[in-house]
This record gives sequence, structure tokens and C-alpha cells, in this order.
Amino acid sequence: MIYLDNSATTKPYKEVLNTFLAVSENYFGNPSSLHSKGMEAEELIEKAREQIGKLLDASPGEIVFTSGGTEGNNLAIKGATTAYKNRGKHVITTTIEHPASMEAFKYLEETGFDVTYLPVNSQGLVSLEDLKNAIREDTIFVSIIHVNNEIGTVQNIEEIGELIKRYPKVLFHVDHVQGASKVPLSIRKANIDLCTISGHKLHGVKGTGVLTVREGVRLSPLFHGGGQEKGYRSGTENVAGIVSLAKAMRLCYEKASEGILELEALKGYTMEELEKIKGIILNTPKEHSAPHIINFSVPGCKPEVLIHALSEKGIYVSTKSACSSKQSEASHVILAIGAGEESAKTAIRISFSFETDKEQAEQFLIVLRNIIHEQRKWIG
Amino acid sequence: MIYLDNSATTKPYKEVLNTFLAVSENYFGNPSSLHSKGMEAEELIEKAREQIGKLLDASPGEIVFTSGGTEGNNLAIKGATTAYKNRGKHVITTTIEHPASMEAFKYLEETGFDVTYLPVNSQGLVSLEDLKNAIREDTIFVSIIHVNNEIGTVQNIEEIGELIKRYPKVLFHVDHVQGASKVPLSIRKANIDLCTISGHKLHGVKGTGVLTVREGVRLSPLFHGGGQEKGYRSGTENVAGIVSLAKAMRLCYEKASEGILELEALKGYTMEELEKIKGIILNTPKEHSAPHIINFSVPGCKPEVLIHALSEKGIYVSTKSACSSKQSEASHVILAIGAGEESAKTAIRISFSFETDKEQAEQFLIVLRNIIHEQRKWIG
Repeated sequence: MIYLDNSATTKPYKEVLNTFLAVSENYFGNPSSLHSKGMEAEELIEKAREQIGKLLDASPGEIVFTSGGTEGNNLAIKGATTAYKNRGKHVITTTIEHPASMEAFKYLEETGFDVTYLPVNSQGLVSLEDLKNAIREDTIFVSIIHVNNEIGTVQNIEEIGELIKRYPKVLFHVDHVQGASKVPLSIRKANIDLCTISGHKLHGVKGTGVLTVREGVRLSPLFHGGGQEKGYRSGTENVAGIVSLAKAMRLCYEKASEGILELEALKGYTMEELEKIKGIILNTPKEHSAPHIINFSVPGCKPEVLIHALSEKGIYVSTKSACSSKQSEASHVILAIGAGEESAKTAIRISFSFETDKEQAEQFLIVLRNIIHEQRKWIG
Repeated sequence: MIYLDNSATTKPYKEVLNTFLAVSENYFGNPSSLHSKGMEAEELIEKAREQIGKLLDASPGEIVFTSGGTEGNNLAIKGATTAYKNRGKHVITTTIEHPASMEAFKYLEETGFDVTYLPVNSQGLVSLEDLKNAIREDTIFVSIIHVNNEIGTVQNIEEIGELIKRYPKVLFHVDHVQGASKVPLSIRKANIDLCTISGHKLHGVKGTGVLTVREGVRLSPLFHGGGQEKGYRSGTENVAGIVSLAKAMRLCYEKASEGILELEALKGYTMEELEKIKGIILNTPKEHSAPHIINFSVPGCKPEVLIHALSEKGIYVSTKSACSSKQSEASHVILAIGAGEESAKTAIRISFSFETDKEQAEQFLIVLRNIIHEQRKWIG
């Protein structure tokens, strides 16, 4: 198996599953219970909070555990705009957000918010100037995806944070789901108020995630109830999920220092080889892009056909975002970078993990060349 | 260890954890991915949906997977009232709901809804007459807890459903978290539109749950995004959580036919013995109550002290709902049944699983008698 769909989901690390199992068996108490089984479970959660805080340059009290990236983005976007709606009803985001943000903003529009969607250039980058011009008297919230999930563009979050800092009424949310561990980011340095992370993109189990909430920031919760997670997110804590998430994040962040360099090399090699294949168009920019995502189009080839042909050979890749892969429309991200309708309809994404090696990339390239060759024979 | 806090959370069954592990390792694909790893994962989810549908007398298409009971209650209550708010802004619930419902209703009040909280009698039962009288022209939603989580009162959901059926504009939500597998309920027969279930109360892993949504019922989602779960609940599906939840539910429902009778006997015995202890007041009614929950008060004894003393002997019980156990106020449920402030402040809940046996109950009673005896010596 050559699994090149790590931006859709990753295989949980063995150590992560061991932790999940051990906690589920030995620390199954409800953290809200007053007896020792409850207190033990609560202590484990607090340790996980501390560990994750350190990795993200946040304090333990700023870590809120969620069920994943979609919840994190929704809680940040709806929670903050609802809590601060009296300050103003203008918010800003980009045209290349993940559906979990994009659809939340569309919902905000239905409820009376005015949303500015910042355009991006051919590399997928938003301009600082555009952002500055978009901020109004009644702007309360800016949400920007750190690493784009389809083409891998990395926004300059620190510069953006620096700008937003000058507007004390504006909160800054970052969708860090694809960036976490692959593209270093300090919540503190980048002046981020809210930051979304998903566990299963980092070899954690599905159903886990983190939203960091800067001290003092109010959120209207999506889940009301017992008041867990400081009231930001009621509901019995997923103790085993939380502790195993801390494990997954630690492992990924430890691998990052060497792993990122290796991925950069792997990406460089693969992009070069892809460029040599006649008719392939690279959508991932060579600069300002994450080390683990490569997006390319094969005009004239239906992406579903390519994916199935690769799948039959044990190679797993995707079209656009897994979350919208079943809708056959063109990718809104590829359209936004101005690559045109045909590219947007024929885009393929491959995404590496720290475990992907050169041999796998080579094997993928061999099979891809054959499939494209075969397809062209049939068509021609 | 004598674990008598199964209404707070249960120990996951070994088989459930095995399933979780096997699925996480072998079917880790994102169900939205188009390749075979994605399709395999999707197939597993659909099988789980079918199995759970059968257990609940619902069709597979009516099963929506959530992260647990709090999410289920919030999605039902906020989701339905938001979707149907143009029909009217009056909703009905009871005074003895779990915080996950109660707090959601308080939030609705803030957003302009008018909420009627039905009183209960000394057994904790709502009156059909009261409900009928409360329904108005602009009523759109009724939410009632099946088995009360603190004292175990079982509402007559079928009769209530029969009544609500006469008002086609009124949706009926049931918080079935404590009832599932312990007190039989057919969603179809009871005319239930929305029904909440939590996995970790049924020996599943934490972070799993189901909301049944009757065909044709609209909900405004809490999570917008990729459109998973028919758009009711976007976000990558927790595949291992979902499949292991189906396993947990099947095991519990299989045990139920014998298990409920055994629990009834165990409850009868324990309640009789508790009544013999001087000064103890039973809050759980002898009739119309679930087989696994017993609530009693020990006036003069601080419940935290009792819980800690029992905990030191390896016996785990709770005060009121785990979700609000850290707030030291009186129980709103015990107040609602008219048992008075002192009882409401000194309530203890024990809750059985199908694995609890008589020996454990006996041991608990011995230790409890000793502790109360010791405490009275110090006080007196």
C-alpha cells in the first residue's frame, strides 16, 4: 500500500492506539465524578492540556478539546461572532478556506453578517494590503487557513497577525489543521486568538481535536450543558481521545525537525518528476507551500478514473478536499488561483506523512505515467 | 473495585475496544475519499447505521452519528428550533432535564424563545394533562427526558408521543441517554422525531453517540462543512467510534432481556436494605423507575464526604449528575419532586450496569452502614 492521502486522514500511530486502549481500560471514569476514578481521569486530561499547550506555545488554560477540525472551525467562527456581534457584524476570510470554514461563513451571511472573502494570487496567497483595506470600523473577526488543504499554500500568518494586532476589536482565527507539525507556527508570536487543530490529520484517532482560545476571549458555545472545558464545550470529555491526541501530537512534533527537511526534498523531487510528464500542470506553488501537499491537474483525464486506477494498484490519492470529494464540481481553490475551469475539474492531490519515502513516490510516478499513457491511448 | 457510577459513565466492553482498535488500524481511510480505503470505511459506517437502526426501530437513514449525548441534545434542541422558528417560538420541556438539555433551553430563552418547563409530581412524573394544556398555537417542539439521570424516573414516552401526534406542527425529542437498553423504547411506536443516545453510557468509548432524526425533519446543523451525515453533522466520521458503538449497543441490547429482570431484582433488594438504614430517605420512586438507578439522601451527611469515604474503600458512587457534580448547589431534580432542600443537598446516586451483582450491592451496603455510623458518632 502506498498511502498518499494524508491530508484526508492519517493512519493512527501504534503508540497512539496503545495509549487510547490503556486509558479506556484503566481510566474510564467520568472526569466530572468526585471519586478517585473521576479524579484520575481529570488529572490525565490536565496533563494532556499542558503537553499540547507547550507544543503550540499556548498556556494549558487556552486548550479546549473538541471532536475535530470541523467542530473547531465552527466553534471559533460561530462562537466568536455570536459572542461579539454587538461590536459589529463584518467578518473577513479568504476564497480558499476548507468547507468547514467556508460553509460556516455562508451560514453567518444567512444570519445577517457581512462577509468579505479575500481573493488570492496565482500562488494562493492573500495580500496584506487587501486585508488591511478590507478591515472596517465594524470588523470583528478574521479567519484564515494556514496551509491550504488542496494546494498546500502557506499564508504568512505572522505578518497577518502583526497587522490584526493593530485592531484590538478584531479577533484572529487560524485553521491550522493541515499546518500542524508540518509548518511551524507559534500561536503567541502570530498573535492568534483562536486556532483549530484536528487529531486524525496527525496520526491521532478520529473524533479528536483542539481549539486554542486565547485567555479572555469569549465564545458562545455550540454545546451547552455541564460546563466542561470552561463552558466552551460541554459534554463528557473523551479522555482516551484527549490523552492519545497529546501522544500523537508529541510524536509528530518530535519528528518535525528532521521530517520537514525530508519532506521538502521529497516534494521537490516529486514535483520535478511530475513536471516532466507531458500535459501535467502543477497547481501547488513552488514557493510558500507546505512540504507534504502536491496538487496537479491532468487536463483531459477524469480525476475519478485516475484515482480508481491508482487505487487498484494500491496507491491512494485524492481529488480536492476529502470533505467535498463526492461533489463533482470544480475545485473552488484552483478556480481562486486563476488556473481555469479545466484544471479545477481535473485536479489530483497527493499528500505525504513523515513516514512517506522516496521509493513510494517513485512507485507512484511509475504507475501514474502508465495510467496516463493508457488513458491517452484510448482517447487518442 | 465496586463501580456503582454507571450513569456517569461505563467501562467500555473489551469487545468494543477490540473493534475500535481493529477498525482504527485496518480501516483508517476517510469515508469521503474516493479510493478503496475510503469506500471500505464508508461501508463499515453504513453497516453500523443499519444495525443501530434495527435496535432502535428506526431506518438506517434516520441514524445520525454524533460525539455524544450533549451534542445530540444540543443538535436536536437548537437544530430543530432554529430550522422551524418561523412556525412559532414556543417550546416545552420539563423541570428535571439533564444539563445538556436544560442549558440549551436557557440559551433558547436568550435568543427569544418562550420555554415552558413542565413540573413533575413526587415521583418525578410529568402529567399528560399539564403537557396538553401547555401546547399552544405557536408550540413547535417538546423535549422530554426518558429516564431521569438522577433519580431514574421513567416517563411514559409512548403516551406522550400519542398526544403530540395530534399536533402535526410539534416535533418530539427524547433524551434517551439513560434509558437506552435499560428501558425498552420504540422510536416508531412512541412517535419520536428526534432521539438522543450516548455511547459511553452503554460501554462504548467516549466521544460517540447517535441522534435519530425522523425522515423529513429538518435541522439547522451545529457543524457546517463537508456535508457528512446528510448535512446534519459535517466533519470526518469517527469510523472506529461508530463501528464500536454499534458493537456496544448490540451487546447491551442482547443482555437486556435477562439483564433488566436481574437489575430489577437487584434494585428491589438494595432499595429495601437502604430503607432499613435509619435516616436514609429514598428519592427514587418504587414505581415508574429504571432498573439501574437508585437515589437516596442522608440528611446531615455531606455527600462529598460519603463519596470520598466510599471511594477510599474502592466503591464508586456519585452525587447528582456527573455533569454538574462539581457545583455544590442542591439538585434541581430532587427539588422538583418536592423532597426539600436538605434532601436535595445530601443526595447520593448509585447506578448499576448489567455486570453489577448482588455481592457488590451487599458489600456497598455494609460499607455505607459503617461510614454513616462513624459520621454520626463524630457529629453526635
